[in-house]
Amino acid sequence: MAHTVFFVSDQTGITVQTLGQALLAHFPGADVERVDIPFIDSPAKAERVAARIVEAAATGGQPVVLCSIADQHLRAIIKRSGVLCLDVLETFIAPLENAFGVAATPQATHTHGAPDSSDYEERIEAINFTLAHDDGVDGKHLADADIILIGVSRSGKTPTSLYLSLQFGIRAANFPLTEDDLENLTLPKSLLPHRNKLFGLSIDPVRIHRIREERRPGSRYASLAQCQFEARQALRLYQRLNIPHLDSTHKSIEEIATTVIQQFGLKRRVF
Amino acid sequence: MAHTVFFVSDQTGITVQTLGQALLAHFPGADVERVDIPFIDSPAKAERVAARIVEAAATGGQPVVLCSIADQHLRAIIKRSGVLCLDVLETFIAPLENAFGVAATPQATHTHGAPDSSDYEERIEAINFTLAHDDGVDGKHLADADIILIGVSRSGKTPTSLYLSLQFGIRAANFPLTEDDLENLTLPKSLLPHRNKLFGLSIDPVRIHRIREERRPGSRYASLAQCQFEARQALRLYQRLNIPHLDSTHKSIEEIATTVIQQFGLKRRVF
Repeated sequence: MAHTVFFVSDQTGITVQTLGQALLAHFPGADVERVDIPFIDSPAKAERVAARIVEAAATGGQPVVLCSIADQHLRAIIKRSGVLCLDVLETFIAPLENAFGVAATPQATHTHGAPDSSDYEERIEAINFTLAHDDGVDGKHLADADIILIGVSRSGKTPTSLYLSLQFGIRAANFPLTEDDLENLTLPKSLLPHRNKLFGLSIDPVRIHRIREERRPGSRYASLAQCQFEARQALRLYQRLNIPHLDSTHKSIEEIATTVIQQFGLKRRVF
Repeated sequence: MAHTVFFVSDQTGITVQTLGQALLAHFPGADVERVDIPFIDSPAKAERVAARIVEAAATGGQPVVLCSIADQHLRAIIKRSGVLCLDVLETFIAPLENAFGVAATPQATHTHGAPDSSDYEERIEAINFTLAHDDGVDGKHLADADIILIGVSRSGKTPTSLYLSLQFGIRAANFPLTEDDLENLTLPKSLLPHRNKLFGLSIDPVRIHRIREERRPGSRYASLAQCQFEARQALRLYQRLNIPHLDSTHKSIEEIATTVIQQFGLKRRVF
């Protein structure tokens, strides 16, 4: 019988969902059904959640509640359901109070940048910058870029750039490598003044072949020979010009982004 | 003296960083410096981290380590530094083993969608869809959208759409409301077949006035009168056509996105 895992929060629930997902990744064999329940900020809402938990306990395997609720009265209502209820913040607040030597405030300040904060402006600016500098669209303001991703088409430049701007407020541009660049092992001209901001993505040719075949089946662009040429030359270019690079074939967007941040010692502007 | 808080992980560290940020939000008065240390996956790297922790303990306030390291030998190296070291996964694994009645695997499966997974394809498709349907650029494939955000310029449509696609694999389009639409309280024609997917963003006119003034100072577009007209009419339009809506003025991107997901009961395709 499936175990329902409830991710309950008084805010968006992103913290419990993120932690919960990492925990569940350790139980690939468990029969688990996730339920996200955000914005539980009143006794009436908490009562309804408790009722759902009790119902899940009656009809399935033992449910689990991962929650993040600042108000202890609301937390108590949820816990009255009698199932395992782990409050992720409560667990760690006390040891941190000891370490810092100050009491925690019962209500968290905003976890994510509220629109009135300077974080928020940084974030929006970074997103706009990345959209304006996607795929080499605008080469004029690259001096304002924190980082410029380069690589062949479909190597992951756009998703990684968006992730960097959206999650970290990092102004990430990205630039394609053209056939001429790859043939001659040279950089696009507009990148020459920004050599120290370049990060290259390489990728398995069979993989881009497969991706491109889905988009333009039978085209030269998608042919294995073309993909092999591009992948090989891109890697040669990075090596020749000593550009830091990563093979993105088996990496998630998060892994690529984290590697870029680490490589350049970038500071996140958004928390 | 500042307390250094180390977020240490054998992977990207996104889990500890997310949880850690939520925890630190309860200590607005604490003098804290954050240090992210991802990819600690060898004894040599763990030793270097331990040395940094010991150094921080010698020169500042008591450091704190929030970590997520699957290998217990590596974890032991970190813990040898003697400071408070909370492993966020370790803490919750045992109670979950009891609840599920199975042992956890020592090594997590990928937390974020690896490129070889179908999750990953869904995610990339959603990002491409959102980019192609940003700001009403393409009205042709709106039938494939999971959700269509509407609102006046600068109300948060683009960042929210990108967040939904990048974090959840949700195909989010967004569409601006033109002056004619607002004047006549009608929807853009291409949206008429998709009424049940619309979500409206409203926003305080003084706020968009301020944002627009930064971009086009002194313009009619940025004038307070124009912003007041647009904000008022957009809200009237939502109310008249019974379109679910949210005032985004004091909401983070995460809060808007979570509200949209909840409103439409959308399923995330990416974990």
